[in-house]
Amino acid sequence: MSVCEILSVGTEILLGDILNTNSRYLSLELAKLGISVLRHTTVGDNHERLAAALTTALERSDIVIATGGLGPTADDITRDVCCEVMGFEMRMSEEIADGIKAYFDSKGYEMPESNLRQAYVPVGGDVFENHNGTAPGLGLKKNGKCVVILPGPPYEMAPMYKEYVVPYLAEYSDGAIVSHTVRTMVIGESAMAELCADLLENENPTVAPYAKKGEALLRVTAKAQSEAEAEKLCVPVVEEIKSRLGNYVYGVDSESIEERVVELLKEKKMTLATAESCTAGYIPKRITDIPGASSVFGCGVVSYSNEIKHKMLGVKNETLEAYGAVSEQTAREMAAGIRRVSGADIGISVTGIAGPGSDGTSKPVGLSYIALDAGDRQVCEKIETGRNDREYNRYVNGSRALNLVRIYLEEKK
Amino acid sequence: MSVCEILSVGTEILLGDILNTNSRYLSLELAKLGISVLRHTTVGDNHERLAAALTTALERSDIVIATGGLGPTADDITRDVCCEVMGFEMRMSEEIADGIKAYFDSKGYEMPESNLRQAYVPVGGDVFENHNGTAPGLGLKKNGKCVVILPGPPYEMAPMYKEYVVPYLAEYSDGAIVSHTVRTMVIGESAMAELCADLLENENPTVAPYAKKGEALLRVTAKAQSEAEAEKLCVPVVEEIKSRLGNYVYGVDSESIEERVVELLKEKKMTLATAESCTAGYIPKRITDIPGASSVFGCGVVSYSNEIKHKMLGVKNETLEAYGAVSEQTAREMAAGIRRVSGADIGISVTGIAGPGSDGTSKPVGLSYIALDAGDRQVCEKIETGRNDREYNRYVNGSRALNLVRIYLEEKK
Repeated sequence: MSVCEILSVGTEILLGDILNTNSRYLSLELAKLGISVLRHTTVGDNHERLAAALTTALERSDIVIATGGLGPTADDITRDVCCEVMGFEMRMSEEIADGIKAYFDSKGYEMPESNLRQAYVPVGGDVFENHNGTAPGLGLKKNGKCVVILPGPPYEMAPMYKEYVVPYLAEYSDGAIVSHTVRTMVIGESAMAELCADLLENENPTVAPYAKKGEALLRVTAKAQSEAEAEKLCVPVVEEIKSRLGNYVYGVDSESIEERVVELLKEKKMTLATAESCTAGYIPKRITDIPGASSVFGCGVVSYSNEIKHKMLGVKNETLEAYGAVSEQTAREMAAGIRRVSGADIGISVTGIAGPGSDGTSKPVGLSYIALDAGDRQVCEKIETGRNDREYNRYVNGSRALNLVRIYLEEKK
Repeated sequence: MSVCEILSVGTEILLGDILNTNSRYLSLELAKLGISVLRHTTVGDNHERLAAALTTALERSDIVIATGGLGPTADDITRDVCCEVMGFEMRMSEEIADGIKAYFDSKGYEMPESNLRQAYVPVGGDVFENHNGTAPGLGLKKNGKCVVILPGPPYEMAPMYKEYVVPYLAEYSDGAIVSHTVRTMVIGESAMAELCADLLENENPTVAPYAKKGEALLRVTAKAQSEAEAEKLCVPVVEEIKSRLGNYVYGVDSESIEERVVELLKEKKMTLATAESCTAGYIPKRITDIPGASSVFGCGVVSYSNEIKHKMLGVKNETLEAYGAVSEQTAREMAAGIRRVSGADIGISVTGIAGPGSDGTSKPVGLSYIALDAGDRQVCEKIETGRNDREYNRYVNGSRALNLVRIYLEEKK
């Protein structure tokens, strides 16, 4: 099996200015080709350190995919350093230079002179067109080693990878890895791992547990000569895990709980509406991350203030006064209210204290109530994460509210 | 200046299952201590490769911070491998074992036996308590080299870093790096860099441009013996950049446009409400990422369907029929409508085609209209990103709508 390393280039990553999402994207994609990723490395825009990192990566691996540092500015050195290490000469491509000029023309801007740096290509190397920016990608193959150079911005890198790099790497793709992820909620990672302790000893497929923002996941990964064979190794193990973990499992290979919920709503031809306090838009944002969600989702109200909870959702002022905004009663009235005003089949609501500050009462940060009203069923759950982590609390509240919808729809005849 | 490398451990990162956010967090924090981060490395849960990566990292650097692989399961080997490479013996700590048991008791769960792996500590090393999970962190110092081992989940890692690791690294913190980021919108990266071309040649402070989801940024970074001296080096350069880039600049060191808008709303004592179609909750989600946003934001409506645009925001059916949902007229009526129904001072709206599919008309993916209604001013802008990238389009639409609020508030007397 061919072995690959991913080399990210950019001082802005080492300074923490930007999050490295490219390495993750490429890892997921390379696995589909049956190419093992054994290391991610990030170095800054520094000639010596980049050259050293590339040199040692090539000693260990068949393929190195470098991203970033192809921009028009003087600190963008990846192109030059990779060609130097691999022993390729550079020349200016008139064709690419014209393409860059045309790109700026089409946007109605004048091309800054510095953009011509991006028109230099390796003699004897391959050039990958950039349909979403100006820097082309490059491919260098020599003595059985392969270096692929891609632009840093994810919206330029990902389409280029799909179109050009997948076929470019075909000769290295001599087997297949198939992975399936069983996703659970409510149960914790340790408890889940205990229930599957014997399976974690498996060699092929391997079974690995991990925790992720309020979820516990088991990843089943098989390697084989073909995708079909690898798939066949996975199936019985995934089934065994599902039967052991029961209703904690919300999906297998669902990208997320929101994807699972949109899928179920479409299947049952039902619609959902959301009423949110602390999550404030996070749930509809997640639902509409799924293309085509408009057939099952039409309306959300963010009622961050009590006034809006009353005015737009019909939560009674007496309820807010007697129990407070963060209470079972308010959550239930929000869910019923959004169902009524939107005309959707199912209304869900969240009200809670996400932190860092409390809400001025004695209620703890991390406390939330989530409710569902589907006409034929009303449910409310209390959540106490015990954590003062605003993003975590908001995310988990949203997931758990969507999980109420998932359970309701799965049980509905 | 001391030099550090960050070593992430976890096959789930190399498979692409999880995004490595810890390296970014630690990079930002280490810069504050004046410790240079020269490399990020990720390796899998593999004894040999982890040992090799740690050994070479220690040859190049004073400090290595390893995260991940401290869990309770058999593939969690970081603790053992780091102690082996640094030459520390391990022993079981009864005290930590009792603490882990108490943690499970407090949550009402029984402790899985495997969790006791987390109670092993290095003889002569330091132990960092985990207040948000069961795995303690570890510190190993020997022969001028330092290895810090932290748990992988960010909500365990970050508080532990702040409480224990910052003082633990004090002896390595012999200078300071100060960075400021000038953030712009509407102008592109190349054009921005051209306007500041001479500054990009600076050595201290360095000035580096980069692009980020519809924004162009310039990072000014100075190194000096003290924070105050480094700050002094930055100030004139930041001022020069601001005067060259004018109104494109929406903030310096604002974490984001939403942070800037919340700050301005508080300053002017005004409130904002949102009406969204394609962004569907993304704008209020971003606004309420900022703790304390409740004093300036109380209401948002996600009107994903035309029915809801009419029913809840009062967009005229004739407007929707004549011009369509994605039109200047609809955007303007949505902004006016949300301002009216919410009672907020300023209403903003977004309606557009985020992709991947079109809306069934001949309008292109990437087309959006954003509008602002503040009573004394109404504005509408057309955006054409030219990209079929749902997340990008939704994010940029939100940013540009918030930018309308920023400009309105900055100009308001």
